[in-house]
Amino acid sequence: MPRRYLDLVSLTDALAAMRRAFPPLNRTETVPLRLAVGRVTAEPLYAEYSVPQVDIAAFDGYAVRSADTLRAQDQRPLPLESSVPINTGEILPPSFDAVVMIEDTWDEGGIPWIRKPAAPWQHVRHAGGDIRAGELVLPKGHQIRPFDTGALATYGITRLKVRSVRIGIVPTGNDLVPLGVAPSPGQTIETNTLMAETYLTRMGATCRRYGIVPDDPAMIRSMLEKAVAENDFVILSAGSSAGSRDYSPDVIGTLGEIIFHGIAVRPGKPVLLARVDGKPVLGMPGYPVAAQTVLREIVGDMLCWWGLAPEGGEELGVRLSRKLASDVGFDEFIPVSVGRIGGVSWATPHPRGGGIQMAVVRANGYLHIPAGREGLGAGEEVCVRLTVPSERIACTLICTGVRSLALSELGNCLIDAGFMLHCCNASTMGAVLALRAKTCHAASICIPETGTAWRDLVLRYLPGVDLLRVPVTRTELGIASAGDLDIENLRFVNRPKGSVARMLFDAWLEEQGIDAARLTGYEYEVRTPGAVTVAITNGFADAGISPAAMARDAGLRFTPLGYESCELLIREESAGDEGVASLIQVARSPEFKERLRSLEELRA
Amino acid sequence: MPRRYLDLVSLTDALAAMRRAFPPLNRTETVPLRLAVGRVTAEPLYAEYSVPQVDIAAFDGYAVRSADTLRAQDQRPLPLESSVPINTGEILPPSFDAVVMIEDTWDEGGIPWIRKPAAPWQHVRHAGGDIRAGELVLPKGHQIRPFDTGALATYGITRLKVRSVRIGIVPTGNDLVPLGVAPSPGQTIETNTLMAETYLTRMGATCRRYGIVPDDPAMIRSMLEKAVAENDFVILSAGSSAGSRDYSPDVIGTLGEIIFHGIAVRPGKPVLLARVDGKPVLGMPGYPVAAQTVLREIVGDMLCWWGLAPEGGEELGVRLSRKLASDVGFDEFIPVSVGRIGGVSWATPHPRGGGIQMAVVRANGYLHIPAGREGLGAGEEVCVRLTVPSERIACTLICTGVRSLALSELGNCLIDAGFMLHCCNASTMGAVLALRAKTCHAASICIPETGTAWRDLVLRYLPGVDLLRVPVTRTELGIASAGDLDIENLRFVNRPKGSVARMLFDAWLEEQGIDAARLTGYEYEVRTPGAVTVAITNGFADAGISPAAMARDAGLRFTPLGYESCELLIREESAGDEGVASLIQVARSPEFKERLRSLEELRA
Repeated sequence: MPRRYLDLVSLTDALAAMRRAFPPLNRTETVPLRLAVGRVTAEPLYAEYSVPQVDIAAFDGYAVRSADTLRAQDQRPLPLESSVPINTGEILPPSFDAVVMIEDTWDEGGIPWIRKPAAPWQHVRHAGGDIRAGELVLPKGHQIRPFDTGALATYGITRLKVRSVRIGIVPTGNDLVPLGVAPSPGQTIETNTLMAETYLTRMGATCRRYGIVPDDPAMIRSMLEKAVAENDFVILSAGSSAGSRDYSPDVIGTLGEIIFHGIAVRPGKPVLLARVDGKPVLGMPGYPVAAQTVLREIVGDMLCWWGLAPEGGEELGVRLSRKLASDVGFDEFIPVSVGRIGGVSWATPHPRGGGIQMAVVRANGYLHIPAGREGLGAGEEVCVRLTVPSERIACTLICTGVRSLALSELGNCLIDAGFMLHCCNASTMGAVLALRAKTCHAASICIPETGTAWRDLVLRYLPGVDLLRVPVTRTELGIASAGDLDIENLRFVNRPKGSVARMLFDAWLEEQGIDAARLTGYEYEVRTPGAVTVAITNGFADAGISPAAMARDAGLRFTPLGYESCELLIREESAGDEGVASLIQVARSPEFKERLRSLEELRA
Repeated sequence: MPRRYLDLVSLTDALAAMRRAFPPLNRTETVPLRLAVGRVTAEPLYAEYSVPQVDIAAFDGYAVRSADTLRAQDQRPLPLESSVPINTGEILPPSFDAVVMIEDTWDEGGIPWIRKPAAPWQHVRHAGGDIRAGELVLPKGHQIRPFDTGALATYGITRLKVRSVRIGIVPTGNDLVPLGVAPSPGQTIETNTLMAETYLTRMGATCRRYGIVPDDPAMIRSMLEKAVAENDFVILSAGSSAGSRDYSPDVIGTLGEIIFHGIAVRPGKPVLLARVDGKPVLGMPGYPVAAQTVLREIVGDMLCWWGLAPEGGEELGVRLSRKLASDVGFDEFIPVSVGRIGGVSWATPHPRGGGIQMAVVRANGYLHIPAGREGLGAGEEVCVRLTVPSERIACTLICTGVRSLALSELGNCLIDAGFMLHCCNASTMGAVLALRAKTCHAASICIPETGTAWRDLVLRYLPGVDLLRVPVTRTELGIASAGDLDIENLRFVNRPKGSVARMLFDAWLEEQGIDAARLTGYEYEVRTPGAVTVAITNGFADAGISPAAMARDAGLRFTPLGYESCELLIREESAGDEGVASLIQVARSPEFKERLRSLEELRA
C-alpha cells in the first residue's frame, strides 16, 4: 500500500550517517600503467632505477676533461684534441668530467675547436639527478595524471596498485525498456544506470550493470542478493519513491537495516540508503536529474570517503540574474548558465524539476542553495560549480527569453564562429527586464506585429536604451477549428496569458464584442502551440489559436488573426563585443535563413 | 654531420605557421554512447522522441478531472470517487486532466479523500515537456559530459558522430628499450610515446603507437611513410635534436616540407614540424619535460584547431615566492607547487630542465613566462595552470628547503590526515628566507649540530620570530677514505658550499691548520652524498665527506667529524593551522620514527 515518506533527513546528517555506517573500504586492484590515468594510488610508489643510472651527456657534443680546456679564450681558440664525440643521453666515458655542446664548437681539419673553457661537470647529467633508486615517486592517495605515466614508466613502474570500489547497478521497473528499444507511450528508456556507470567510472569505480528487474518483490530480492554478493556498493535504480508498485524499500528493509529514507534535497528527495551484509545499498530515484543529484552528492561523497577522486568542476563566483525561491531546510541544486555580460559573470537559472533533463544539458553549471537559506536574491553573489572548462565562459552568449527551434539552430550555426549560445527560458517580459538589468547578451522576445505592442511591451521598460532588433521568425496565427467558427458553441483550448496567441485572441474577442467568460474552455491553457491542434484532432476541444502552418498540416480550418514576430533585442552598446557581433551576423546571414527554411520543410 | 639549429621561431609564430599550413581536419567516427564521454560532437544531435511522449503523471497518486474537485475544502473534504490510481510516469487516462499526490490524500472506506481542489494539469508532465521530437539536444562541437549520456539515451540517441583525429606515434633511437625491459646504463626506457598516447587520448584523439625504430635513415623513412599513410598526424619521438645520430630531420626533409625546426620555447626548443603528403609530422624532443611541453602547447593547440577539446587545468592567480630569470624572446614553462600560506596563495618553482621529470610529478601546476618578459620578480602576481583540482590547494602544505627521503616519507604519512606535502628544493639559507617571507608552511633545514650554527644560519635571519623546531633526522658525518688518512697525499671529492658536510670539513681543516688550497680535488664538488662513496670505490678519488652509515656500507674507513641535524622550522603562529598541526603531529609520532628506522634497515 502507498506510504508517505518518513521524516526527511538533512543532507548533512545523511552524509554523516552514511560515513558512520560504513568504514573506509580498503579494496585495491593492480592495473597496467596505460590504464592508470585517473586512478588513485593505493600505496606509495618508489623508483626501481636511478635516472640517469650513470653520468650521461645532457647535450650532443664532445666529452672532455675540463682541466684540458682551461686555456681556451675568445682570442686563443683551442682544439679539443683528446675529446670524444658524444650524443645526448650517452654515458660519459671514464675520467671525462664535462661536455661541450656542439653549438659551442666549430670544425677545423676534422677537430672541434672551442673559445671558452668547460667547467667541471658542465652539461653532465649526474647519476640519480632526476631520481635515485628507492626514492619516493608518488605517495599513496595520488590521482594519476596523464604526464605521470611517463615518469612512472621511466622509473621502471609498469603496473601499480590502485584503490578500487566495485559498484553493482540494478535497474528496476515495469515501465523500463533497454537502450536501443523504441519506447511505447508510457514506457521509459532505461538510461539512469548508463549515466551512473559513466559518472562513477570516471571517479575510478568499477561498475557492473545488471538487467532490468520488473516490479516483483521476489525478483528484486533475488537480484539484490546477487548484486550485494558481487559488489562493494549496490545501487537500485528507480526503486525509491513511495508508489504502490515500489517494492524496493520493503525488500531492502527485510534484507538489511535502513540508514535513511527520504532526505531534504531537491531534486533527490526519495533516496534510500540501507546496510545489507555490511554493504551500502542505495535506492536511487528514477527522475534523471534527481538521480544525478544523488550520484553527485551522496554516492560521490561515499566514494571520496572511500578514497577515490572527486569528479569536481571548477567553482566560480558569479551574480545571480534573478531571484530563486527555496524552502528553508532543503538543500537545492539548480542548473544554471553562466556568461560574462559587460565584465560581470551572471548565472541564469534553468527550470528546476527532476524530470527536466534538458535543463542540465543546456546548463554549464549548477548552484547549491544550502538548507539554511530561504532562496537567493536577484543580483546576489553566489558560487557556481561549472560543468564545462572555465575558459568556455568567455565564449558563452546568454540569450534570455522565449526559446524556439530557430534559436537552437542559431546556436548551432554560431559554433563555427567559436561561440556557444545558451538560451534561458523567460517570458517576453522577463527577457525585456533581463536586458534592462544587463544580465543577458540578447533578449529573445515574441510580440504581436502591431504598432502598440512594441511600445507597450518593450519600449516602456527600456526608456533611453539604444536597441538593435534582429528578426528571427515571423509566424501567422489564427483560430484553428474542426468545423465552422460558431464561437459561442465551440469548446476552446487557450494559450497562456502573455503569449502572443492569447493577446491576438483577446484583441479579436474584444473587437468582435464577445465576452470571454461565455466561451467554453477559455480557461483551459495548454503550454505549446502543438498541444492546441492535438487537442482538436483528439476531440478534446473544437478550436484554439494555432500557427497557420500547424493548422493546415492538421487539416483544420484556419481563421487568420495576425502575425507574431520573434526577434532578438540587443543593446547597441554591446554590438561591438565579438560574440554579440557574431550573433548578429549569423542571425542576419542568408545561410541561417536558408537553414530555417529547410528545417521547416523537413518538419512539414 | 652535426648541425646547429636553424633560426628559432617564436611560439606564437610557430602556432600561426602550423594553423596556416594545415586546414581544419573534418574526420569523424561513430561511437556508441557508452564510449562518448569526453568526445566532441561532429554534428548537432536531435531528439528521436518527445519526452514524455504523452501526458503522464509527475507523482504517484490519483488521476482526476480537475472540475470534479472544485468543491473540496479544508472544512469539507471530498471523496475522489471517479479517480484512478496512477504511478509516476504512467499515462494520464483520456479525459483526465490532473493528478492528486498520494501525500495529499487519505484513505476512508477504500476511497481517497482530499481537502483541496486540483488545478487543471496539476502534477501532469505534458508530452514534450522535457523535449520534443526533432528538437536540438546538443549542437556540434560539444564535449560530452558524463551526465549528457543519460539525456542522450533518454532521447533515443544510442550512437553518435564525434570528431576524430588519428595520431601515429613513432619512437626512434638506438638507446631506447621498451617498457618492461630493464635498461642497461646509458639505455632509456621508451616512455614518451606512452605519455603522448595517454595525454592525446584524453583530448579525444585516436592514437597508435609503433615499435621502436633504430637510428637508421632507411628504417625511419619506411616507418614514417607507413605512419603518414595510416594517420592524420604523425609524431616522431626523440628524433628532433641536432646530434650526429639524428636522422629524422633529414628524412622528414626529403619526404616533405619543413614548417619550422627549433622554437624559442623552454623546454621544447628542438621541436620540428613538417608537412608530408599534406599531413603534419612533428619531431618531438626526447627529454620528457620538453616532450610534455610540445604535446601540450603545440600538438594540443593543433588538436583544438581541429576541433577536439583542450585538456585544460584550472587557472589560479597566485604570488610567486621567488624570482625567476628568463631570456627575453623565449616562452618558458616552469613546474610549480602552489599552497595557501596565511591566506595568500604562493607558487614555488621546482627545478627547470627537460630531463627532470620528477619536478613535474612533484608540482601541482606550471606557470608560463611569456616571451616578452625577462623573468618574473619575487612576490609578483602570476597566473598558474593547475594540474590538480583546485580544491587540493587548500590541503597542500609547502615545505621549502633541503629535500630528503625522510621528508618524502613524512609526506606519505601525512596523506592519511588528508594533507599533501610538497617539498620544494632550496638550500638551508633559501629555506630560512622562505620562512621569513612567509611563502612556505615549513622550512626544511640541515645544520651542523654546534651552538653557533643555529645562531649564525637561522636566528640572525629570523629575529623576533617565535619558532618551532621539529627534528627529522640526525646523521653522523666524517671523512670516508679508502686507506689511511694521509690528508696531503690523497685525492679528495668535496661537497658543495653550504652543505653541512662542507662546513664540517672546512671547520676541521681550519682546526687542523691545513690549507684547503693544498688538497688535491678540494674543488671537485659532487651533488649527492652517495656520489662521494661511489667516487672512492670507483677509484676516481681516495677520500671525501660522507655519512657514517654510507662509509661503513661501502667498506671504507671513517673518521668522524660531527653531526648533521635536519629539521623542520615552523612559525609558532601557524602551528594552530590544521594542516601544520597535522604535519607537526605526524613528524613527532613514534609511528613515523619507526617507519624511518625500518626504511634505513631496508636500505642497509
